Amino acid sequence: MQSSRSVFFISDRTGVTAENFGISLLNQFGQIKFKSTTVPFVDTPFKAQQLIENINTIAKTKNQRVIVFSSIISEHIRRMFDNHAYIFHIDVFDSFIPMLEQEFDTKAHMVMGLTHSIVDETKYDARIHAVNFALENDDGITDKNFSKADVILVGVSRSGKTPTCLYLALQYGILMANYPLTPDDLHRTELPNMLKPYRNKLFGLTIEPLRLNRIRTERRPNSTYASLHNCQLEINEAESMFRQHGIPFLNSTHKSVEELAASILQITNIQRRC
Amino acid sequence: MQSSRSVFFISDRTGVTAENFGISLLNQFGQIKFKSTTVPFVDTPFKAQQLIENINTIAKTKNQRVIVFSSIISEHIRRMFDNHAYIFHIDVFDSFIPMLEQEFDTKAHMVMGLTHSIVDETKYDARIHAVNFALENDDGITDKNFSKADVILVGVSRSGKTPTCLYLALQYGILMANYPLTPDDLHRTELPNMLKPYRNKLFGLTIEPLRLNRIRTERRPNSTYASLHNCQLEINEAESMFRQHGIPFLNSTHKSVEELAASILQITNIQRRC
Repeated sequence: MQSSRSVFFISDRTGVTAENFGISLLNQFGQIKFKSTTVPFVDTPFKAQQLIENINTIAKTKNQRVIVFSSIISEHIRRMFDNHAYIFHIDVFDSFIPMLEQEFDTKAHMVMGLTHSIVDETKYDARIHAVNFALENDDGITDKNFSKADVILVGVSRSGKTPTCLYLALQYGILMANYPLTPDDLHRTELPNMLKPYRNKLFGLTIEPLRLNRIRTERRPNSTYASLHNCQLEINEAESMFRQHGIPFLNSTHKSVEELAASILQITNIQRRC
Repeated sequence: MQSSRSVFFISDRTGVTAENFGISLLNQFGQIKFKSTTVPFVDTPFKAQQLIENINTIAKTKNQRVIVFSSIISEHIRRMFDNHAYIFHIDVFDSFIPMLEQEFDTKAHMVMGLTHSIVDETKYDARIHAVNFALENDDGITDKNFSKADVILVGVSRSGKTPTCLYLALQYGILMANYPLTPDDLHRTELPNMLKPYRNKLFGLTIEPLRLNRIRTERRPNSTYASLHNCQLEINEAESMFRQHGIPFLNSTHKSVEELAASILQITNIQRRC
């Protein structure tokens, strides 16, 4: 069996950019097994030197180059990873900053820590406000803030509403509420009373019955609530309601929160706050 | 005044990678104002053609090239954005896939939608499980799951515990609980009883008194709770507690959830589940 290939995502800040970028490339090589490590806050030559020694040790043990994806602002520090026999270095900044400088006809500032830090406090506060809003307006606890919500997610219990709301709040500052469709709601053809005034803010989530059955069974084994028959029934009724009232909806079964969020933003055309 | 420079982040999937990557580069040009648009799901030549026409219209109106950052798997579709007089195209895949193919001595698969979709259902379920865990163990509601938690965040009310927990759960599948230090807890020198058995899982958050005062004032104006004097007192006592019991802690005032999360992972050495 081939051993796994070692990869490092390194950064002088959180490492989110280097990791995200590196993973999207490595995912295209599904035939190779990668062992990846993210190292944030590599912001001094001393830390860089220590890391290089660690990487060299790994590479020598495996007798194979280690892949390093870096996003490090300091030219001095990032260059330290160049020209090592055992390091294959892909540098986000070196690769593109020169061509952007030419296009913009100006020099880059190269100031540390601008990407995932609090550059704009108002925008950051909007994210945190949105997280609190999502928590306070989760699971149909109350409709008192529905008028302030950007989107009200609607779906049967465990269809994926809460994680989707939290992701949209945390990443984009969207004011998300959600409302669980109960069996009582589903037996009627009308919209639930709490939702009627907000028809144009509603967005539905649905899910495959088998997946819902599995999720609910983990919570309440052997319950009517979790039974496949009941899951099928609830989902059919929820989808009928969405169609009847022209509520856009998505199936969350094979979609990550990132995909659901991107689709919801695109379909609703809601303005992001960050 | 110089008008803003138009930028598009485009992808056949969520656009998260292209946006993240592009923003980290553009942030280095703080002197330029950018007007950015993210377009996900550009997965057919027809959609690409429509988008190119829109971009060309913008560019011609402004008489300035539009910057396009793309992460599109289909070679045919991404090449459609090349060689336009009005498009400055930075292609994440074209730039690096060839050199990685050479390094790995194999061809890339180039299969769509691997980065922010559910490739590994177990890993994805771990994220969603962690979100539910964070919600159920938020704000010291109960200690019944503290034994299962990876980390228990501790701090005074509104020091940033909940958003940090949710981010670590949603991004990395970490099982996070949190416990708010109340004035009763703070007047004693001992750890709160609920926390005593979990000393080695505790991580503290602190915050500057002025910032805490501002956040609490929005919630409860003119209260003792929000007063600057009380905020100072609570923070002093909380920090004393952290120091006395050797609890690692961070100041959340100027740190984003991304930065807090990266630091907490690094300091605790907790294993990510995704």
